[in-house]
Parts: sequence; structure tokens; C-alpha cells
Amino acid sequence: MTLSSTELSRMLETAVVAARLAGQHAMEQLQYLHRSIKNGSEIVTQADPECQKIIIDHIRQTFPDDGFIGEEGTDGNLLKIPPRGNSSIWWVVDPIDGTNNYANKLLCFSVSIAAMVDGKPVVGVIFDPTTDSMYTAAEQMDAQLNSSKITVNAEPVNQFASFGVDSHVNELTDAGVQTLMAQTRFRCLGSTAMHMAYVAGGALIGTVTAGAKLWDMAAGVILVERAGGKVTDPLGNALFPVNPEEYNAEQLATLATNQKYHTEIVNIFAKK
Amino acid sequence: MTLSSTELSRMLETAVVAARLAGQHAMEQLQYLHRSIKNGSEIVTQADPECQKIIIDHIRQTFPDDGFIGEEGTDGNLLKIPPRGNSSIWWVVDPIDGTNNYANKLLCFSVSIAAMVDGKPVVGVIFDPTTDSMYTAAEQMDAQLNSSKITVNAEPVNQFASFGVDSHVNELTDAGVQTLMAQTRFRCLGSTAMHMAYVAGGALIGTVTAGAKLWDMAAGVILVERAGGKVTDPLGNALFPVNPEEYNAEQLATLATNQKYHTEIVNIFAKK
Repeated sequence: MTLSSTELSRMLETAVVAARLAGQHAMEQLQYLHRSIKNGSEIVTQADPECQKIIIDHIRQTFPDDGFIGEEGTDGNLLKIPPRGNSSIWWVVDPIDGTNNYANKLLCFSVSIAAMVDGKPVVGVIFDPTTDSMYTAAEQMDAQLNSSKITVNAEPVNQFASFGVDSHVNELTDAGVQTLMAQTRFRCLGSTAMHMAYVAGGALIGTVTAGAKLWDMAAGVILVERAGGKVTDPLGNALFPVNPEEYNAEQLATLATNQKYHTEIVNIFAKK
Repeated sequence: MTLSSTELSRMLETAVVAARLAGQHAMEQLQYLHRSIKNGSEIVTQADPECQKIIIDHIRQTFPDDGFIGEEGTDGNLLKIPPRGNSSIWWVVDPIDGTNNYANKLLCFSVSIAAMVDGKPVVGVIFDPTTDSMYTAAEQMDAQLNSSKITVNAEPVNQFASFGVDSHVNELTDAGVQTLMAQTRFRCLGSTAMHMAYVAGGALIGTVTAGAKLWDMAAGVILVERAGGKVTDPLGNALFPVNPEEYNAEQLATLATNQKYHTEIVNIFAKK
């Protein structure tokens, strides 16, 4: 299915407003946080499901038949609402990416919203309410930060460049992460969506997340691609299509870099 | 020399205004950045010395005889202006801590200003202009964030807690950093001053910086101490007194944690 630029614009505008409403709520709730543990290993706050509801309610006003996948379902599961009628669009929602930071009042977190068609992200919005930074992209359109065009950083791995790493390492990424930590000024901000937004904006030359879920990275993927970058798994394999109907919170190890040095960085993970 | 609370308040108020003026200038200059390399290994922008001048000019209006140590001197050296007349107060200035982030437009950097008496920080201000967060502390006073009292986090090392690490590792800290990266949600924000401010505010349970310079950590030290934490080198040795007269940019490896688990974390670095 190919969407017209008018349809994409309408989706993007809707996502921007939804992200801003949710981000505003997250900031208001910072002073009243209740933390709990989800699935034994993740912190969640009362604001996470509240922000997710704000986003879905807002998008449904314009797109009542579209489907939704969100991080916050019941009993620690994901939320899934399949599209109805003629719609085959899925919205992928991470109401607060970087919840651990949020729960600790570390001001680095974001709202991440993507729309997927035919298993691929076609619209993406990442909003950082702590610095009022709205990152947007859609097929056929430029990636933008607060309405100004952004492009990825064209630098190779070097000692002045920053590379974003995940605070969870695993066998797939561990050796590559160690190499990049030694060869760059690595950063670990604690939000995959923010890392990807910063790749799109050129602040980071790349980022890797071993344990990314679809909602952590779907918006970042279209952002980085439209900013001139490339997103694959750490070994260079395509991550999409992903069928939201079947997706059940599987990990999608994600490497996002500029286009020019993607192969060089894949080779670090492939130990070539 | 013991300063009265009136004198300390006056110094703190002066530092707050200086930090705000410099932070404002840093934000304005974000769109017009010129980067250059200092000492072969550090990025610097035109805004760093400009912000330093704003800070010193402002403090001198109230305290014309006090001395200054700043990160930005001529030819990549530090700036040093000894106190005159009856003054024995040194102001320690890092106009933009996290310059690498700043130069890449990664919105995590801060202005750090301390006042030292008898070789110890007695007043400290860390201002993050990207989120409008003003951290303040002084002897005899509470540590505060935007005028509200803050205290350190009382948690031990655990999988939900965040610990700030430096993007430069060395022999002194490397093994300990690896352990803490495995046992906590580590963070590497790229600003020592911000890490210390987040320790004071309880967002991080601790932070270590192998290559800290006096201007990176002096304000953070009094902040963390007044918030109920403890700052030493990674092996638990006292860092102060430091004589600003003699200080020449030597590295002061710094470990800041809550009071309760300081020994436990020192033992990680001491491999006990």
C-alpha cells in the first residue's frame, strides 16, 4: 500500500500532537511518580499507561480504524489492538522511552510514535519533552528537528565522535560495543529512541541496542533513514518487514549509523 | 577561614546569576558553532571562552579581588588569576562541561561554578540550560534543585539503579567500571558535572570519572556532600585540600556516591 503525501502529512501532524500531549503529561507527573516493577526486570510508573492512553485516544479521533501496538498492556504484556475495516495501518507507541531515567528523574526520556504499513515504519515522531525537541520524519519527506531539516553525521569511527550504546549488553553486541567504547566517546543515555533521534540529527555517529523492542526503535528507523542513515541488525541484516499482527515483544537488535560507514561498523560487530 | 552564612548566600546568588547568563549564551550559540581541537584530544567551541568571560565578568562585579581558575586559558592552557588584596577565595569555572556533547548538539551539558576556600569547595552551582535545572549548594546550606531540597539516593548497587561512568577509562577505574556496568543500568551522559548533579539529586546512585579536572568536579563535590553523599577518589582517599595556586590541570579521579554504600563501591574499585 502506498500512501499519498497528503495522507502521510496528516498522520505525521496527528502523531506530533499526540506526542506533545503525552510529553506534557509525563513532565507534569514527574513530581508525583509511583514506581513499580514489571516482568521482574523493568521499572514502570503510573505515567506510562496514562501517556499511552493519551496518544491512542488522540490518534483515534482522526484514525478510528487504525491498529495499535504499545509497550503498556495489562499484566506487563504489550497492548495490541488490530486495525479494523479498511485500515491496515498499525501505530507503534512507546509512551515513555527511557522509563528507568524517568522514574529516577534523570531528564533524558522521550515519547516515540511510529506508523507502520506493510510491516515497515512510514511515519515516525520522537519527542523529548525535557528539551522540547520534536523529531519527525515520514516517507517522501525530510527528517526534521523542530521543523528544520536534519541529516546524519558523515564521520567515521574516531576519538571525537560519539556512539550510543545500550546499558544491556549481550553476546551479539558485547565485543563490538567494547571496541566502539574504546574508539569513540561512547554515550549511554538510557533511551534507545533518543539515541536514534541523535543519530538522525548527527549528534551520534551511530547507536546499537541489543534488546530493542519494536516500540523502542520503529520511529527511530524512519527518522534515521530519512536523515540519510541506515538501520539494520548489528550484522547488517534487514530488520523489516515485521508483522505487527504476530509481533510479541521479541528483541530486535538494532544498529543505526550513517550510510557511509555502516559497513565499517557492521564489520566491528561481525568481528571481520 | 570561615565564611558567614550571609557571605555564603551572597556568593551563591552571584554564582547562580553567572551560571544562568553563561547557560543562556551557550544555548544562543548552539546554532552558530565553530569547533576546534585543543591539546590534540579535546573539542572546544567559540562559546566556551565566551561563556567563561561572562561568568568571570559577572562575579568580579561583586567580588573584584577574588581569584579564578577556568578551563579555557590561552593556547589550550587553563586560565589562572590569583586573588588580590585581602581575598583568599578562588572561583573554579567550567563554562561548558560536556563540550563534546555541546559541539555535537547533544543536549546534555552544563555550566559548573564553585568557590573554594582553604583548598575546599564551599559553594557550588551546576546549571543545565537545556532543561533549565539549577543545582545549588553551599556550606551550612541544603543542596537544592530549582530551590527545592534534594538528597542522594540511598540504594545499594542493584539492577534498577543507575551509575554514571566516564567515556574515558583507565587502569585505576577500568575493572570497577566494568563491574558496575554489569550490575547497574550504567549511564554515560558525557558531562561529569551533570553526573554529579544527578548523584546529588538521587537520579544516579553514584558516578566515577577517571580523568576529572578540578573545574569538572569542584561544584559537584559540595553539591553531593550537602545532599548527604560522599566524594573521594575511587580508592576512598580524600581529594581535598587542593591548592588552586599550584593546580595545573592534574587529573583528580573522582568517585561520588551516597554515604551509605560508599565503602561498598570503593571496595569494587579496590577489588576487595
